[in-house]
Amino acid sequence: MPSDDQAPTLAASVPQPDGTPERLRRQIEFIIEVDQLKNVFRQSPLLAADRRENDAEHSWHLALMTLLLAEYADEPIDRSKVLAMVVLHDLVEIYAGDTFLYDTAASADQEERERAAADRLFAILPNDQRDHFRALWDEFEERASAEARFAKAMDRLQPLLLNYGNRGGTWRTPGVTDADVLARKSVIGDASAELWSYARTLIRTGADHGWVPRAEAGPRS
Amino acid sequence: MPSDDQAPTLAASVPQPDGTPERLRRQIEFIIEVDQLKNVFRQSPLLAADRRENDAEHSWHLALMTLLLAEYADEPIDRSKVLAMVVLHDLVEIYAGDTFLYDTAASADQEERERAAADRLFAILPNDQRDHFRALWDEFEERASAEARFAKAMDRLQPLLLNYGNRGGTWRTPGVTDADVLARKSVIGDASAELWSYARTLIRTGADHGWVPRAEAGPRS
Ligand SMILES: [Ca+2]
Repeated sequence: MPSDDQAPTLAASVPQPDGTPERLRRQIEFIIEVDQLKNVFRQSPLLAADRRENDAEHSWHLALMTLLLAEYADEPIDRSKVLAMVVLHDLVEIYAGDTFLYDTAASADQEERERAAADRLFAILPNDQRDHFRALWDEFEERASAEARFAKAMDRLQPLLLNYGNRGGTWRTPGVTDADVLARKSVIGDASAELWSYARTLIRTGADHGWVPRAEAGPRS
Repeated sequence: MPSDDQAPTLAASVPQPDGTPERLRRQIEFIIEVDQLKNVFRQSPLLAADRRENDAEHSWHLALMTLLLAEYADEPIDRSKVLAMVVLHDLVEIYAGDTFLYDTAASADQEERERAAADRLFAILPNDQRDHFRALWDEFEERASAEARFAKAMDRLQPLLLNYGNRGGTWRTPGVTDADVLARKSVIGDASAELWSYARTLIRTGADHGWVPRAEAGPRS
């Protein structure tokens, strides 16, 4: 539940017309509140424009990828559930912010910050939808099902494509090596052997081109 | 099929590693090509930031709305199919551009431009997925099923929320009246009586506040 010291929601600045049914009002307030996902910026640079990507367009890209790549899942998956997961997977970042994959300091309290954000954000919804969204997000975070593992694979593969296409992108972060990239991306292999094979080839090709430094004595794929 | 005078694709600027299987290569090229949807800007202003919305984040917002509002559909709908439709409904605008709802001149050849764009874009995909995406997009455009009508309702309701929340937004376009807004939004009623009732209330409330001019002798809802 929101505590007193928290800023008012965006939704509170858009009063709904008198007579809007309570359930619909809460759903609409949530839809308004999450407009803020378009203003949470990631580290990844786009391919199509010279700016960083925001979480909303990133989430859309994962949904599109799910439609095309679901056939590579090693376990049977319910595509509709994967779509729901990728659409909502980053919503907590509206309050918790984006945590860069290679920022180990920020990652320390990430889980706690994101859980608090989920408590606050999903509470806007009618109780049944609050519980449903929260359960889907928990399942995604814990990679507790084939759908969660596939959604997580999409979330890891997409920025890999952006970095590869940008001849480096965030691979050029000081201190990051090909071994770090391989380690962070290995969850793709929990969902699809074929997509993980492709991802390893992208990383290897990037290292061959000098877009990501090789680890001095790191693992080789 | 692309003709000789068309610019090379974005995907062509990102060569895939040698040995990438043909089917996967075409899927990845499509995923790269559609990064451009993040760079197609709409007229609608965001609620969360002082800029216009792009098609990718708009499409994500429709998917989120579908998850929450599917229960208001008057006909049974396959939610997974609606999600697929809203994710791909604007892709043709990568080549055809966004056509503003209240721009009647640009609307004249919109259909032809968008069909040509669909021919070109979906041809990047493996043939089975090309045909599947094209069929879904045609169905959406023709509002030929309950899913298409619901997806179209989401597409009309979302900018209504942005305009209402912005106390006008594109409702303030010169020449546009509440009667025009009601006419353009009436397709919401083909999918859901309850959402259309809510949408009419938003428009009426907006007119009451002076955010959209009233038609001199226009229809009243
Ligand atoms: Ca994230």
